[in-house]
Amino acid sequence: MRELKLAVIGAGSTYSPEIFEGIINRRDMLNVKRVSLMDIDERKLNIVGGLIKRMLSAGNIGAEVELTTDLDRALDGADYVIAQIRVGRLPARVLDERIPLKYGLIGQETTGIGGFFKALRTIPQILNVAKRMEVLCPDAVLINFSNPSGLVAEAVQNNSSITMTGLCNLPINMITDMKKHVGQDADVTYFGLNHLAWITSVRKDGKELMPELLETYETEDIPKKFYRLCGGFPCGYLQYYYTRRHKLEELTEKAKNKTRGEECMEIEEQLLELYSDASLYVKPEQLSKRGGALYSEAAVSLLNAIENKLPEFHVINVRNNGALPWMADDDVVETKVLVQGKKFIPIPVRGFENDHIKELMRTVKAYEKHAARAALTGDREEALRALMIHPLIGDGDAAEACFDEMLNAHKAYLPQFFA
Amino acid sequence: MRELKLAVIGAGSTYSPEIFEGIINRRDMLNVKRVSLMDIDERKLNIVGGLIKRMLSAGNIGAEVELTTDLDRALDGADYVIAQIRVGRLPARVLDERIPLKYGLIGQETTGIGGFFKALRTIPQILNVAKRMEVLCPDAVLINFSNPSGLVAEAVQNNSSITMTGLCNLPINMITDMKKHVGQDADVTYFGLNHLAWITSVRKDGKELMPELLETYETEDIPKKFYRLCGGFPCGYLQYYYTRRHKLEELTEKAKNKTRGEECMEIEEQLLELYSDASLYVKPEQLSKRGGALYSEAAVSLLNAIENKLPEFHVINVRNNGALPWMADDDVVETKVLVQGKKFIPIPVRGFENDHIKELMRTVKAYEKHAARAALTGDREEALRALMIHPLIGDGDAAEACFDEMLNAHKAYLPQFFA
Amino acid sequence: MRELKLAVIGAGSTYSPEIFEGIINRRDMLNVKRVSLMDIDERKLNIVGGLIKRMLSAGNIGAEVELTTDLDRALDGADYVIAQIRVGRLPARVLDERIPLKYGLIGQETTGIGGFFKALRTIPQILNVAKRMEVLCPDAVLINFSNPSGLVAEAVQNNSSITMTGLCNLPINMITDMKKHVGQDADVTYFGLNHLAWITSVRKDGKELMPELLETYETEDIPKKFYRLCGGFPCGYLQYYYTRRHKLEELTEKAKNKTRGEECMEIEEQLLELYSDASLYVKPEQLSKRGGALYSEAAVSLLNAIENKLPEFHVINVRNNGALPWMADDDVVETKVLVQGKKFIPIPVRGFENDHIKELMRTVKAYEKHAARAALTGDREEALRALMIHPLIGDGDAAEACFDEMLNAHKAYLPQFFA
Amino acid sequence: MRELKLAVIGAGSTYSPEIFEGIINRRDMLNVKRVSLMDIDERKLNIVGGLIKRMLSAGNIGAEVELTTDLDRALDGADYVIAQIRVGRLPARVLDERIPLKYGLIGQETTGIGGFFKALRTIPQILNVAKRMEVLCPDAVLINFSNPSGLVAEAVQNNSSITMTGLCNLPINMITDMKKHVGQDADVTYFGLNHLAWITSVRKDGKELMPELLETYETEDIPKKFYRLCGGFPCGYLQYYYTRRHKLEELTEKAKNKTRGEECMEIEEQLLELYSDASLYVKPEQLSKRGGALYSEAAVSLLNAIENKLPEFHVINVRNNGALPWMADDDVVETKVLVQGKKFIPIPVRGFENDHIKELMRTVKAYEKHAARAALTGDREEALRALMIHPLIGDGDAAEACFDEMLNAHKAYLPQFFA
Repeated sequence: MRELKLAVIGAGSTYSPEIFEGIINRRDMLNVKRVSLMDIDERKLNIVGGLIKRMLSAGNIGAEVELTTDLDRALDGADYVIAQIRVGRLPARVLDERIPLKYGLIGQETTGIGGFFKALRTIPQILNVAKRMEVLCPDAVLINFSNPSGLVAEAVQNNSSITMTGLCNLPINMITDMKKHVGQDADVTYFGLNHLAWITSVRKDGKELMPELLETYETEDIPKKFYRLCGGFPCGYLQYYYTRRHKLEELTEKAKNKTRGEECMEIEEQLLELYSDASLYVKPEQLSKRGGALYSEAAVSLLNAIENKLPEFHVINVRNNGALPWMADDDVVETKVLVQGKKFIPIPVRGFENDHIKELMRTVKAYEKHAARAALTGDREEALRALMIHPLIGDGDAAEACFDEMLNAHKAYLPQFFA
Repeated sequence: MRELKLAVIGAGSTYSPEIFEGIINRRDMLNVKRVSLMDIDERKLNIVGGLIKRMLSAGNIGAEVELTTDLDRALDGADYVIAQIRVGRLPARVLDERIPLKYGLIGQETTGIGGFFKALRTIPQILNVAKRMEVLCPDAVLINFSNPSGLVAEAVQNNSSITMTGLCNLPINMITDMKKHVGQDADVTYFGLNHLAWITSVRKDGKELMPELLETYETEDIPKKFYRLCGGFPCGYLQYYYTRRHKLEELTEKAKNKTRGEECMEIEEQLLELYSDASLYVKPEQLSKRGGALYSEAAVSLLNAIENKLPEFHVINVRNNGALPWMADDDVVETKVLVQGKKFIPIPVRGFENDHIKELMRTVKAYEKHAARAALTGDREEALRALMIHPLIGDGDAAEACFDEMLNAHKAYLPQFFA
Repeated sequence: MRELKLAVIGAGSTYSPEIFEGIINRRDMLNVKRVSLMDIDERKLNIVGGLIKRMLSAGNIGAEVELTTDLDRALDGADYVIAQIRVGRLPARVLDERIPLKYGLIGQETTGIGGFFKALRTIPQILNVAKRMEVLCPDAVLINFSNPSGLVAEAVQNNSSITMTGLCNLPINMITDMKKHVGQDADVTYFGLNHLAWITSVRKDGKELMPELLETYETEDIPKKFYRLCGGFPCGYLQYYYTRRHKLEELTEKAKNKTRGEECMEIEEQLLELYSDASLYVKPEQLSKRGGALYSEAAVSLLNAIENKLPEFHVINVRNNGALPWMADDDVVETKVLVQGKKFIPIPVRGFENDHIKELMRTVKAYEKHAARAALTGDREEALRALMIHPLIGDGDAAEACFDEMLNAHKAYLPQFFA
Repeated sequence: MRELKLAVIGAGSTYSPEIFEGIINRRDMLNVKRVSLMDIDERKLNIVGGLIKRMLSAGNIGAEVELTTDLDRALDGADYVIAQIRVGRLPARVLDERIPLKYGLIGQETTGIGGFFKALRTIPQILNVAKRMEVLCPDAVLINFSNPSGLVAEAVQNNSSITMTGLCNLPINMITDMKKHVGQDADVTYFGLNHLAWITSVRKDGKELMPELLETYETEDIPKKFYRLCGGFPCGYLQYYYTRRHKLEELTEKAKNKTRGEECMEIEEQLLELYSDASLYVKPEQLSKRGGALYSEAAVSLLNAIENKLPEFHVINVRNNGALPWMADDDVVETKVLVQGKKFIPIPVRGFENDHIKELMRTVKAYEKHAARAALTGDREEALRALMIHPLIGDGDAAEACFDEMLNAHKAYLPQFFA
């Protein structure tokens, strides 16, 4: 077994312990010898880093663990880099949630104009990680789950030579739920863009179960009547598209009290307090409240497949390369790949005919292309072009006014727009 | 010169005199010997038909003119068929304008859910005209300007062997205005879908004038800031997309008094009164108030180019066949064609890069494909699928509720949904 | 373990014992309960069938073995069908080898006009097997290695609903040889059409070894100078394309004595004599002289992967479906697939740039499309169209004259041309 | 009328008088004020230039005529540049005709390995003309009929910003002959690559005449049985593909006496003697013997359409840009364009289904791409790659040996291979 160095960027995240739970569970297959935990928030880094050290020790992983605020130091010689940063932390998220509501627009962390600003803040940072990796550990793999994960992957995979993949816990959760329902041996097809994806086929024993499932199966968040529109099961984030007004009212009502970001701030503080307890050496139960189930599981199981050359299928964000024939080759899509060491081979989908899904994917991808360019160049025109294509915006006056207020609010994290 | 029979379907329209003004102006090139005016509204047919007879007589066109309510009789042996019908007449239009407003949706004759219902009513009727032509005059050309003209062309060109084209006065008006500004020898590129189109290039003496025009030229209806988004000049109907909320407020306010359809009802009655005057033998000035400038001019000049094999360029609705490479071959688009007798050769556009325009065209075309299928099959699911793709709808609950109310309101004209 | 019925069509072939050697070697994974050996040549069937019975018995496979001349009886209820027929037997092959030489054309069993006539004779028969399977065992898998294997797969996969694959021993042999040279952990890319394929990439530890191998590695049959032309290693059959004249002289010289088909007739008789020996209960060594090393190994290991849902890679003949982007989706190509039960997922190749290989594949595929149609319809024009596209023919006069002589010679096996 | 400067590169060609006959015939539409005749062969330049001066004077064209051996001087300020050079003159052609025969290969001026060497010699020279035009007359149009015209256009159009078109007299001759047969109002579709093209459709009064013409019409050079293979009428050069052996024998026989090149040397001397006659002031009848009917007519009528913005159709060599959907956008093809000033819009062909033609075009285009690269880089490997794709070669040993002999024979004109 090769000796590995693992770097976690944004390691102060309260999600980090899950990663190391995954590492511990796979100790027979992954020989982690060095861990570098990097964050710019020293307080959180020390608290979370302390717990991780205790976990690894209790798990009999004899790895050297380093805590650092220096990105280059963390990346130097790494074999795998896991990134989970939040530029501007939760207060920036709360702005993404609150400001759009004033303009009658969906205010959400990863979708719509909220997710757009998160992308503007995050893309330059993750691309910077990739660019430093090109120098310091060019053969390492970057596994990113900083949101918006698909848009970040779109920008990085088309602008860096590093092997990079964008991960999300949504696919694994939806597929797992479906398999609980129909059986573990079912073949579940799931694809789309990150946070804009669908289960489109469920086959078992050579038979397509979808027509039957459309009548009998139910997912969270999405009213049943939309299943037939899609000929499949939309992921939860599609509720913002299918029932926009209802969601807008709901978010507006909720914001009178606390947005989700504000709730997360409280949960985070509670978690940090728990993590500070020197007698704790396992991931605490309460983390599950924070959301993100199976997030780290997805990351570590992918890392394991890459490292041990297991020919496994994973759903990740990857350049399309002809797999979904209605998308361009360089469009990053969320779809099933076969892992072949460091190569991810997207499995071609053929004979798929739902225009609704194809057009929604193409339209949102066109938005993403503009958004990625805007994030990299700081070009205001390009930003407005992105927003005008986005199906959740659809009004130039509101887009422009909201954009200007948010740009100003996030000024400190968007230097590219003020050069 | 070949002797021609011309059939006008929906001849009771107050627009009809313009067609014959065009015929009279081209009497040296078009040898019209028989005219069949067909309408199901006998009152209007008699009034308008009377005026047309006087016009032709005053214009020294020795054609035999027939008034009929029988479609087959009108089509039999025709060389050209001009269709300009309005199923359910103006009262149906008023429903298309008023009902959507209740659901926070744009209520407009040709765009959004209003145009959708107009399509559901109109497509089966025009397709029926084409099917009867296949029997009664298979070599004749069908020139349609019944709205929504692009959607009707989409349905008919993909479902009948008749040579058919969809016309609109928007392209000719926008191009004419631009040429007034920059000079008649300019090469103006205009394309899109009907009522969703742009001037994308203006070349003169080998030089692209667009960058300069974006700063100096102005069109009606669309705020200047949207020009740069498009890299060109959007047609007026795009204001419903770019400033949706403002338009929604404007329409809602206007509907407190009269919708445009209600105004048109008054104008129409005034025109019919004028037309009834037996001493009138030219198209009266007041028709210009009704809108539709150059509509008939476009139709008759196209007819003339076809008949006399003039190698002219016209902007019409035609199957794409590779001209706009981001659209499918069988997508009907509105673009410049070279007329070659009865063949329309769409002129290829290459090197065009504005994603906003490409994606909006593709998305609305996906809507149109579903809408055309819904119109032909009466399938409620297909109708909802169409609406969910439309960028002006974007909310499943509103779409469904509004659809159900409108379906009921238009029941008499939508038998395909009640079979 | 599921109980299996295995049908072998053309079981009198002297290759058949190898299949059962493979079955015996995998007795722990494949629970074969019934074997149906079908042939129209009762003498060979009895000799070969006798040996197979003794082999299975010695191998402790308690399967019921049936010998039959009735296709339907063999197929009824089968789980796997292996086809290895030779329509017209070896005498027809000798005609394919001898007649073309008279016209200055390559006379070879699977390539050029010889392979073309073999396809005309074989395709209707294998398609008939597939059509009977649709009725008698619709869920069974058809593994064909009757030559020309790629052309037969082209015809059957596009004309039957049966899961069918075409196999050849060339890929497995070339890949095995290469791995012996560079190491078992190398990733060898091999693709093309059957008998028109290349090793195009050899990667190890993330590094492309091809530039180095082009200088140092040698394959049989193909002069070294052609490697650089291809940027890879051509399969042996490409010598007919690269050194056509030399091969033509060689074949002409050889035909003065015996063609390969005539040699095979002798070898076959020797083998049948050996097989008749009631004391023989293993595959005799002498079979290796017949050629076709690893043929049955390829077939049985594929069968095993399908049955036991092993996620293995195999190189087989399969519909392209976007894997090789320069070929059409419905072109059957020979390329690496991932076996997923009864589904074969061709692994996409991207970034491949050798025009020589692309064009040769496309040209020969165009020939194959015409050839398959000619085989199914018996249309002489279509047959000549096929030959005119074939790069080994290239002369209309010779093509036509040779076609007519061969058509007449094979008349008994080509009823479709004499209807 | 704009005052024009016309430059003829290779003006010593005995074809040049035809160009000026065309100019004289269009004196009312083309205001030629300056003519620059450039050649490196001063003797021929003086003889031909003398005749041209007398012709222009007799034709009342008051243009200033300059004779020069300086390319830059000729190009400076030109509006149109006509190129008709022959690098290595007729003796090089004779080598292209004779050497290949030794290797059993077709020896022909523009096709096969002969045309390949002509391309290697000519492409760098014409590209140099284009590059100098970029500096000295960037808005001028380059009309080239130096052979191989299609291959030269392929190289120049993809490597220079100059508006350039490749012309040939074959299309105009075949279309003219066909129209003589079926009527001037027929719509004749002709496309392919230069010297590899077909009439594929002849429509009149809305009816396709091809099925009937295939039985009744005959073209020169190509045996009738090949028409049905093509579903159309091949141009004469396709005889080298369809009846290669017959042509090879014919050329071999002819070469025992004189090749066509050697005949042309004699004709040329006779013409020069005629041209030297100071009393001659019209193009002499004898020029027609030299072949190339309508060559200059095609060039001057195209020049006239460009200059006077006539919306005419011409068949020229132009980048495909989607017109023939089976070819790539940057493939230069020979097809019908609409002339729009300096823009040539290739008219899309849809619904064309003959695989034979598609594959032959694609294969020869792949050859051309390699050949153009070889001509520009002098890379021997690239040259051999080109030859191995060419359907008229098809044997690696012969290709290599013949290539080496010809490379040596043409050494003086192929410096790029000896750098």
